[in-house]
Amino acid sequence: MKFEVIKSCLYTKARVGKLHTRHGIIETPVFMPVGTQGTVKTLSIRDLKDINPPIILANAFYLYLKPGHKLIEKAGGVHEFIGWEDSILTDSGGFQIFSLKKLRKINDAGAELQSFYDGSYHFISPEKMMEIENSIGADIIMAFDECISLPSSNDKLISALKRTTLWAERCLNSHARKNEQLLFGIVQGGDNEILRKQSAGEITAMPFDGYAIGGLSVGEGKEIMYRMVDFTAPLLPYDKPRYLMGVGTPEDLIECIKKGIDMFDCVMPTRIGRHGTAFVKTGRLIIKNACFTEDFSPLDPECSCYTCQNYSRSYLRHLFMVKEVLGYTLLSIHNIHYLINLVTQIRELIKQGKQINDIID
Amino acid sequence: MKFEVIKSCLYTKARVGKLHTRHGIIETPVFMPVGTQGTVKTLSIRDLKDINPPIILANAFYLYLKPGHKLIEKAGGVHEFIGWEDSILTDSGGFQIFSLKKLRKINDAGAELQSFYDGSYHFISPEKMMEIENSIGADIIMAFDECISLPSSNDKLISALKRTTLWAERCLNSHARKNEQLLFGIVQGGDNEILRKQSAGEITAMPFDGYAIGGLSVGEGKEIMYRMVDFTAPLLPYDKPRYLMGVGTPEDLIECIKKGIDMFDCVMPTRIGRHGTAFVKTGRLIIKNACFTEDFSPLDPECSCYTCQNYSRSYLRHLFMVKEVLGYTLLSIHNIHYLINLVTQIRELIKQGKQINDIID
Repeated sequence: MKFEVIKSCLYTKARVGKLHTRHGIIETPVFMPVGTQGTVKTLSIRDLKDINPPIILANAFYLYLKPGHKLIEKAGGVHEFIGWEDSILTDSGGFQIFSLKKLRKINDAGAELQSFYDGSYHFISPEKMMEIENSIGADIIMAFDECISLPSSNDKLISALKRTTLWAERCLNSHARKNEQLLFGIVQGGDNEILRKQSAGEITAMPFDGYAIGGLSVGEGKEIMYRMVDFTAPLLPYDKPRYLMGVGTPEDLIECIKKGIDMFDCVMPTRIGRHGTAFVKTGRLIIKNACFTEDFSPLDPECSCYTCQNYSRSYLRHLFMVKEVLGYTLLSIHNIHYLINLVTQIRELIKQGKQINDIID
Repeated sequence: MKFEVIKSCLYTKARVGKLHTRHGIIETPVFMPVGTQGTVKTLSIRDLKDINPPIILANAFYLYLKPGHKLIEKAGGVHEFIGWEDSILTDSGGFQIFSLKKLRKINDAGAELQSFYDGSYHFISPEKMMEIENSIGADIIMAFDECISLPSSNDKLISALKRTTLWAERCLNSHARKNEQLLFGIVQGGDNEILRKQSAGEITAMPFDGYAIGGLSVGEGKEIMYRMVDFTAPLLPYDKPRYLMGVGTPEDLIECIKKGIDMFDCVMPTRIGRHGTAFVKTGRLIIKNACFTEDFSPLDPECSCYTCQNYSRSYLRHLFMVKEVLGYTLLSIHNIHYLINLVTQIRELIKQGKQINDIID
């Protein structure tokens, strides 16, 4: 048993599940903080452990470029290398690869591209990506997909869909650590319901350990994103984890959990944190605003995060005004804690048979 | 009793002392990490507490400009504002002020300058500086001195010396929180022994709680610095703490403790840490060097700091190669720990009546 739904919401498609990995049991719905380059930006492992997310995310493509997957394998795997003892998921980096300006060519064999670090050339095939992710050694690894931004023509969407299916099968066939690493397939199809249905049918016909909805949150706008999730989630097996890639905001988490999504990741909490924006119940707090100059209360008086327990808005504002890195760290801590706490609250509501009200107000 | 020498070295002028402040007892010799803008760069209070320096330093002039001393007073003082429960020293910022390109004019009344933040004009007199440091509320505050870089002409050195003496008296007279904040005087005199003797005589004739040697580590080179410390330290009262400002490296600490110095501060451990250099027993370790690519041992196998207990050289190198802020934090932690640990070892040797050997090798 790798995944089990332990409770379903009485009012929506939301559910609480348990996902078993080599490094622990992850209660879903779950938000996964993003550590693209093997570190959640500006946070130490001590900072992260204090927030206690059961799983964090890294990007296999970035780690392949630097420091290299073979180096991480020599270090004893990614957990050992970065010092994280709980679960890790590696995204294959499909979205990053197909967003590259230095993508030289792509065909069914794979993608040829230039490193943004040093201009060196690399050829990434599905088999190569499995080699990379096997070496890195995360608990959950993602198939290599072709992920394109929206809007795109139907021709391009169809081409990406077909290639994603083709590559999914090759990923399954070349995955060398099936007993240790869960492999998730990714559904494409853009903003087209017919294509989403086709992709979901093709991908779920293959024996993946979980299924992701990819190709969303790539420029299409909220309404389309929600519509696509609403349409696609029920096409994924009930008894497998469903992962909505690259989403999202507090609002997105609530909405998409209701649509039956179990797993989320997004760089947003750390990215907006570094720019001085904090999640609060009433929306977003811009810490540089003059109104916080002499505000000695915490970001959120009810929040139990390290930042809110120890620092005032006035001090945080000062750190941003004088460009001290600690400000970036403290707002990132708060924002990640906010999302982790939000999904924890939602899980509790589902477990108690209560309605997932609009927690944010 | 604000300061007591509890043990003198049998072989050198070094001594172990106890300095009492409102926030605790500081064993000397002590190294004080620098948090110029109210934060030790890239470290949280949690990171600092783990290293456990008994006192940290902030810069009154910087804090006056941003966020403003009156704001810090409203926050309940600097300890409350930055969240540090142990002792704090504020440097008046004399060196920073007299290094400013936007210093408009200076005379015996004070210095007129432009803020490097917003170009606004400010007039700083000794009385104003005491108002600033009284409001900020550190445990130890420094007199407002004229600190000039070396080499300088004797005329300039004499002028700075005279003004420093004049201002020292005005600082003493205007210090409004004598029962709460220790006020230290500062000896100037540049690289001239006659002037050092004159300044030491004038400053130590005034009833300060401690005496600092200023105007060194400002371009004069090691040999002159050591000679000036050697000459000046014995001119300072035995029963008061002696603070050598802006020094130093591990080597400097050892040498100057032997010359009778009790207190040190320097931005170096954090500054070189952010640039990828770590203190190790054999000297300096440049983490970006290729030889550390697959080195999975800690920076220093014998070090008990958070960084060495949790991260490998290989991972630290990776963080620097991909410009992740966590690298800056982790090397800063190690370097501060290194200096704190170094002075702790030296104190133990003195207490045990042992010779202060060259600990660094």
